[in-house]
Amino acid sequence: MKSYHASLGAGIAGISVRERQRPAPGPGEVLIRIHACALNARELMILRGYYTLPVKPDVVLLADGAGEIIDVGTGVVRHKVGDRVAGSVFPRWIDGRFSLDVAAQIGGSLDGMLAEFVVANEDAVVRIPDHLSFEQAATLPCAGVTAWNALTGLRPPSPGDTVLTLGSGSVSLFALAFAKMHGARVIATTSSDAKAERLRRLGADAVLNYRADPQWHAAVRELTGGRGVDHVIEVGGGGTLEKSLKSVAIEGQIAIVGWLANQTTTIDVRAIAGSVATMRRVAVGSRAQFEAMNRAISAHLTAPVIDRVFDFADTLSAFRYFEAGNTFGKVVVRLA
Amino acid sequence: MKSYHASLGAGIAGISVRERQRPAPGPGEVLIRIHACALNARELMILRGYYTLPVKPDVVLLADGAGEIIDVGTGVVRHKVGDRVAGSVFPRWIDGRFSLDVAAQIGGSLDGMLAEFVVANEDAVVRIPDHLSFEQAATLPCAGVTAWNALTGLRPPSPGDTVLTLGSGSVSLFALAFAKMHGARVIATTSSDAKAERLRRLGADAVLNYRADPQWHAAVRELTGGRGVDHVIEVGGGGTLEKSLKSVAIEGQIAIVGWLANQTTTIDVRAIAGSVATMRRVAVGSRAQFEAMNRAISAHLTAPVIDRVFDFADTLSAFRYFEAGNTFGKVVVRLA
Amino acid sequence: MKSYHASLGAGIAGISVRERQRPAPGPGEVLIRIHACALNARELMILRGYYTLPVKPDVVLLADGAGEIIDVGTGVVRHKVGDRVAGSVFPRWIDGRFSLDVAAQIGGSLDGMLAEFVVANEDAVVRIPDHLSFEQAATLPCAGVTAWNALTGLRPPSPGDTVLTLGSGSVSLFALAFAKMHGARVIATTSSDAKAERLRRLGADAVLNYRADPQWHAAVRELTGGRGVDHVIEVGGGGTLEKSLKSVAIEGQIAIVGWLANQTTTIDVRAIAGSVATMRRVAVGSRAQFEAMNRAISAHLTAPVIDRVFDFADTLSAFRYFEAGNTFGKVVVRLA
Amino acid sequence: MKSYHASLGAGIAGISVRERQRPAPGPGEVLIRIHACALNARELMILRGYYTLPVKPDVVLLADGAGEIIDVGTGVVRHKVGDRVAGSVFPRWIDGRFSLDVAAQIGGSLDGMLAEFVVANEDAVVRIPDHLSFEQAATLPCAGVTAWNALTGLRPPSPGDTVLTLGSGSVSLFALAFAKMHGARVIATTSSDAKAERLRRLGADAVLNYRADPQWHAAVRELTGGRGVDHVIEVGGGGTLEKSLKSVAIEGQIAIVGWLANQTTTIDVRAIAGSVATMRRVAVGSRAQFEAMNRAISAHLTAPVIDRVFDFADTLSAFRYFEAGNTFGKVVVRLA
Repeated sequence: MKSYHASLGAGIAGISVRERQRPAPGPGEVLIRIHACALNARELMILRGYYTLPVKPDVVLLADGAGEIIDVGTGVVRHKVGDRVAGSVFPRWIDGRFSLDVAAQIGGSLDGMLAEFVVANEDAVVRIPDHLSFEQAATLPCAGVTAWNALTGLRPPSPGDTVLTLGSGSVSLFALAFAKMHGARVIATTSSDAKAERLRRLGADAVLNYRADPQWHAAVRELTGGRGVDHVIEVGGGGTLEKSLKSVAIEGQIAIVGWLANQTTTIDVRAIAGSVATMRRVAVGSRAQFEAMNRAISAHLTAPVIDRVFDFADTLSAFRYFEAGNTFGKVVVRLA
Repeated sequence: MKSYHASLGAGIAGISVRERQRPAPGPGEVLIRIHACALNARELMILRGYYTLPVKPDVVLLADGAGEIIDVGTGVVRHKVGDRVAGSVFPRWIDGRFSLDVAAQIGGSLDGMLAEFVVANEDAVVRIPDHLSFEQAATLPCAGVTAWNALTGLRPPSPGDTVLTLGSGSVSLFALAFAKMHGARVIATTSSDAKAERLRRLGADAVLNYRADPQWHAAVRELTGGRGVDHVIEVGGGGTLEKSLKSVAIEGQIAIVGWLANQTTTIDVRAIAGSVATMRRVAVGSRAQFEAMNRAISAHLTAPVIDRVFDFADTLSAFRYFEAGNTFGKVVVRLA
Repeated sequence: MKSYHASLGAGIAGISVRERQRPAPGPGEVLIRIHACALNARELMILRGYYTLPVKPDVVLLADGAGEIIDVGTGVVRHKVGDRVAGSVFPRWIDGRFSLDVAAQIGGSLDGMLAEFVVANEDAVVRIPDHLSFEQAATLPCAGVTAWNALTGLRPPSPGDTVLTLGSGSVSLFALAFAKMHGARVIATTSSDAKAERLRRLGADAVLNYRADPQWHAAVRELTGGRGVDHVIEVGGGGTLEKSLKSVAIEGQIAIVGWLANQTTTIDVRAIAGSVATMRRVAVGSRAQFEAMNRAISAHLTAPVIDRVFDFADTLSAFRYFEAGNTFGKVVVRLA
Repeated sequence: MKSYHASLGAGIAGISVRERQRPAPGPGEVLIRIHACALNARELMILRGYYTLPVKPDVVLLADGAGEIIDVGTGVVRHKVGDRVAGSVFPRWIDGRFSLDVAAQIGGSLDGMLAEFVVANEDAVVRIPDHLSFEQAATLPCAGVTAWNALTGLRPPSPGDTVLTLGSGSVSLFALAFAKMHGARVIATTSSDAKAERLRRLGADAVLNYRADPQWHAAVRELTGGRGVDHVIEVGGGGTLEKSLKSVAIEGQIAIVGWLANQTTTIDVRAIAGSVATMRRVAVGSRAQFEAMNRAISAHLTAPVIDRVFDFADTLSAFRYFEAGNTFGKVVVRLA
């Protein structure tokens, strides 16, 4: 079987494909035929060599993957042959709070999903919603679970609350869908009228163009009658945090996700002190959060947004396309 | 001005109408011209003399009322003349947990709303949603807030959770609407196909006829793949509690509301021990819960269900109609 | 190696000891040399044949056991040889909420701990506090974790809250210790002055003799200035639940644990409706709760209460002594 | 009667004493004879003119005050003559979350407590613990309630958790006492060995001298086995926030309180992203939090730390002494 491997610091050019023997499931393990994988910003950091978390040398790429169980080891009770599953990014994080004990992550310190066959502990995979294709399901483990945790991990939005999403990255698009499911109102920011129109079609109640109006936080205040928003899904990092702090309501929440490690940005601590809000750093999520998200996605027949699908043989093109940016939705690799 | 008063134990026949002087607001108080009031089961208990909580002799009837502020006393900061408001059932219960200190309730130990003019502390009234008529808004303080607290007071439903409502009393109808807002699925029970059809039109995903199938709890299990429901809004009292306990999922919640004081029903404690669930007794709700509910109702343009509207002069007919039972939605009294 | 097995329905006389081969740890598993086990009421139900949950035929007895890891299988990361550990009653319940998926329990549907050597998944065992002997640590998995979950699982007591414990069973004694750690005040009930004195020495702020005063709930009200207690650890079942409902404060919590399956007791539903409280059924607890409890026990150097220790060869005497009742603290079996 | 007034921007020299008529309580109000007041850092900001929140011209100084009710207006139900009370800093914030609607604060946008007699709404005062003198009780409203909210407002510490307090300001000293009540372990930082000794006597389990060891966050890590602390009570502002972020455990909490408005400090956003923790800005607390704190203080007979007491006539000396800094505990003004 074939799998794609990173050479840390060598960039996309350093990705290699290898032929290995198909693995067999041990006790408590399942063998998955992978049908689709998806790309995330963390992969670019890993390839460029500045990911801040430990990465295994020659790691099999990608945390996002979905497929079908084709064999199970002894003692497996949660899954059976034929189950359609995806992997959980932190295989040992079952439920409750995150901790160092469960911090090993696939496609990082552990091998990832960009392989024809993958063996995983049965506790580390979850069934995917029936209405989703493997391509759609492959978008869930990183971006979906991160958005779910960001929105619901501390105090989920109430119907009538307002959620602010920034841009049209995949975490933001999932957060938009999940906020609507909760009966919340969504204000989204974006850089173009074309994307604004797509965000509106996905359910955004108001869209602000941050290029046209760099003081968009004032518009957020106005759209909320001066109150500010109840939730911010902060994916912009140093560049937007001060504006998020100015956009959030008293006792509101800012979920902090996905900052790029090579940014050097400072903020004035008075911006933090001046906003009676809670900032919570989010690290993807647990298997229980993945399962809760899947129940919600199943009940609401949510369709993850896919930008483009590439063939397995074309994986390097997928990475180059993703690296070029300006996608709207996930870049997916499809296996036979 | 006119107001309707109870004579405790004398039933509907004992209701009297009185002519009194229009009150004036003191410091911190507002004067409300009442436009609509609504009836609740508690009023029948009060009139029949077996309400278990303290009732003031000759109390002005009804906890549910809505109107317009026409005057304000000195020092009022939360409201102004022209505000459309409803009263909070427990005028001193602002936020947080219930306690004896805030247990005085209007239409019970304090005078109620069935009067042409009512003076209230500004902290005891809330603005009503703009899209609602006074008749609609008058349905909110008891049944609406009770349903909101029952559904959200401990742990609100997640999108994809299943909520079980019993019958088509007003608390159940509000709970159905609020559950849908939260992205939950609703299973409702009812006694007739006609009501089943109305429940479906209000959003119920499945309706069970408890007359046709007294073992409806088995059907609930089946509809949830054996798991049981995440929430039960238990309004049926002793008659249904054991079935609710059999319908609820492990770690699910049963909110207990509105039992009649003259029922004598026992349940087997093993039914409680046999269900790894949480039962929470609900006592209407706080002003903060009322306000949160109103935000949600405004965002979702929810329309409370009204069965029939009577004129103020016809109040006794309203009580007799309500007492006869078999309503679907609220019985409302409209003032000029 | 030797292990003790139940013959369901045959009582203590039906317990058999068997000689089996020492097991070896597979991948992800650890081999534990058991040094101590403890008895719980569930074992008597299992032996008498009326335990309500599934039990494996010829099951190795006892959920409570502690020992030392003497070998580990491949891929083990959480533990190493030499670790002093106890088993978690539900080996698959890691964290978060309980569910059917994790309901298999040792000493019930799975083999238990009363054996010289036990193999367990590394995820199913926890390190025990350093200051505890194996005998003391063996008391933790059932009674300790149940008490911890009962007290902290929904909303832990605040300093200044009052906790009511019933009798001097082991769950009650642990709840007393844990309540004191939280800065709470404890009222305990008991049947004798001798036990009252022991409860006081363990930290109880007030002790009520329920034999001498069957209306002890009135005394509880008095001791709390009429307010009632914030928490009840309800272990008495049908016999005490109505009194617990009369003892609890508005918005207080009743944790329901450990009722005997052969009791037939009913309560009036009005007792439930008349108390604005929350009743939560507790099913031991998760591994995460076990670990949180151990952190607390380590910080406070808590000493579990042991009534009597028997030798492994004398296990049947231990069961007979335990069955005779009237113990104060755990009955423990010590292995070489 | 006499009262002390601020002249904004004029500093301590601008404080004036005035003779006014003793006020009378209106409906729902109580008249308090003030016996003691306490000083907080906010007062210096108000006097220097750079407090960031609205301040009433000529405001009566001080948010902290305690005294005895000597008269009540009509309709008062919560209090009676003779009650020993303190004022709540936000008179309209009863319970639940903070909001703009309840943001008016005494000694700021509303008159404060440094007067011989004060009239307050009965909802805006709380009974003080019996075992406290008025001088001790006067220290509670700002520093005590802030520490209580900081420690318990999101997720209180569990027994066995570790809490980090910074320095020996009054919020830190209260947080130390409250953390110990919760069964937590406390690590405190300080600048001198003398203060370290006092912190230890107040219950600190470990004290770090931040002058002697500017890399104290490394010592915090070591003292927690590498894990970091569960709670930080962050009072140091920009100067310490990055070190607090390095001291906190994964999923730990940082409560942000009391930063000086004239500081200009930036932090690297990567410090926020690099710490999977929650930062929550705290704004004193609600009346319900004040009452919960008082229950805990009463149960534990906590003694607030007072540095020095000045006579009412000597108020300016009290301010100058406080401004000079280096106090350990509160500076209190005593009235006859």
